[in-house]
Amino acid sequence: MVTSPVVNTYPLSSYTFGTKEPKMEKDTSVADRLARMKVNYMKEGMRTSVEAILLVQEHNHPHILLLQIGNTFCKLPGGRLKPGENEIEGLKRKFTSKLGANSPALVPDWQIGECVAIWWRPNFETIMYPYCPPHITKPKECKKLFLVHLSEREYFAVPKNLKLLAVPLFELYDNVQRYGPVISTIPQQLSRFQFNMITA
Amino acid sequence: MVTSPVVNTYPLSSYTFGTKEPKMEKDTSVADRLARMKVNYMKEGMRTSVEAILLVQEHNHPHILLLQIGNTFCKLPGGRLKPGENEIEGLKRKFTSKLGANSPALVPDWQIGECVAIWWRPNFETIMYPYCPPHITKPKECKKLFLVHLSEREYFAVPKNLKLLAVPLFELYDNVQRYGPVISTIPQQLSRFQFNMITA
Repeated sequence: MVTSPVVNTYPLSSYTFGTKEPKMEKDTSVADRLARMKVNYMKEGMRTSVEAILLVQEHNHPHILLLQIGNTFCKLPGGRLKPGENEIEGLKRKFTSKLGANSPALVPDWQIGECVAIWWRPNFETIMYPYCPPHITKPKECKKLFLVHLSEREYFAVPKNLKLLAVPLFELYDNVQRYGPVISTIPQQLSRFQFNMITA
Repeated sequence: MVTSPVVNTYPLSSYTFGTKEPKMEKDTSVADRLARMKVNYMKEGMRTSVEAILLVQEHNHPHILLLQIGNTFCKLPGGRLKPGENEIEGLKRKFTSKLGANSPALVPDWQIGECVAIWWRPNFETIMYPYCPPHITKPKECKKLFLVHLSEREYFAVPKNLKLLAVPLFELYDNVQRYGPVISTIPQQLSRFQFNMITA
C-alpha cells in the first residue's frame, strides 16, 4: 500500500493562548488593498505570500486555526514575503509576527512542512485561481499554503484585535460563502494526509 | 525555496487513441449501484476504489483525461479493488481494463505517482467527503486518486461506448454542477505541483 504522509495532531487543550498588542490590517478597504498591491507590484514585481495551516484535534476530528477579524472575515496566519526572501524563513517571520510570543526566547523553531496548495492572482482583483490561467504571463501574486507541524505544547500570543478560532474540517468543507475559495478547499488538500490524533 | 514536485506534461497530440469493445456500467441506475455496494459491503467490508489522474497539455495549460458516458456524466478511469489487493497493482489493473490495449504486450508499466486526494463515503449514499466525518466508525468506501505519470508516447484503447475527453483545469475549477465535488476540485489538489510543459 502507498503510505500517506502523517501529521500528528494534538488536542486544542494542549496549547496555551495569550494576548499581545493589536496587529491592525494595513488597509481599511478592499479597494485600498488592491491599490497598495499595484504600487508594490510596480516597485517589486509579483507579490509572493505564504500562509500557515495549523492543525489541532478535538473529538478526534482535525481542526484548523484561523484568525478572525471582526465578526466575519477569517484568514490564515501569514503574509507577504520581502523581495527575494526564502519562503520558509519568511513564513516563520510572518507567523511569529502574527502569533508568536513577543519575547524571542519564547518563540520556537516552527516546523514548516509540506506545501499543500498554490494560488495565483492574475489581475489586481480579489479573484484567485489554483493555477496560473492561460494567457496570463504576468500574474500579480502567488500565494503558497504550508502545513506547520505543531509540537505537543505551544504558546500562541494572539493580537488583541483578533480572535483565534479552531474550525473543524467539516465546517470548512463546501462552505465557500463563509470562508472563501482558498480556505474552504483546505479539507480536499489535506485529504491525502493521515492524521495521527494524539489524545492528552 | 521549497521545491514543488514536477509533473511532465506532453501535448495531447503525442498520444494515440484507438477503440476497443464497450465496457458497460455494471448498474443502470444510482439506486442499483448503491444496492450492489451494500451487498458487497456485507460480503467484503469497506470498498476501496482507486482512480487515475492523467495529465496532458494543450496551449501550455494542463488538461485531465476524463471518460464520458453518454452526453453528461464524466469519470476518472479506475475502479474497485479486490479485497486485500495492493492499491498500485489494482490501479494498474483497472486502468489497463479501462484504457489499455487488449494485447498485454502493448500495455506499458504505468507509472503510478502521488496520491493527491482521498474521499470517504460514510453511508450507502452518493455523498462523499474529503475526510471521514466524526462519529462515522464504519465508512462504506474509501476512494483514492493517484497521478499517473504518462510517458511521451502512449496508446490508449477507448471502449466504444465511452469518449475520452481532455478537459482543461480552468473548465473543471469551480464547476461542481458539471463535474461533481471530486473532479471539480482536482485543480486545487494539483496546485502544489509544478507542470513541466513539454512541447512536441
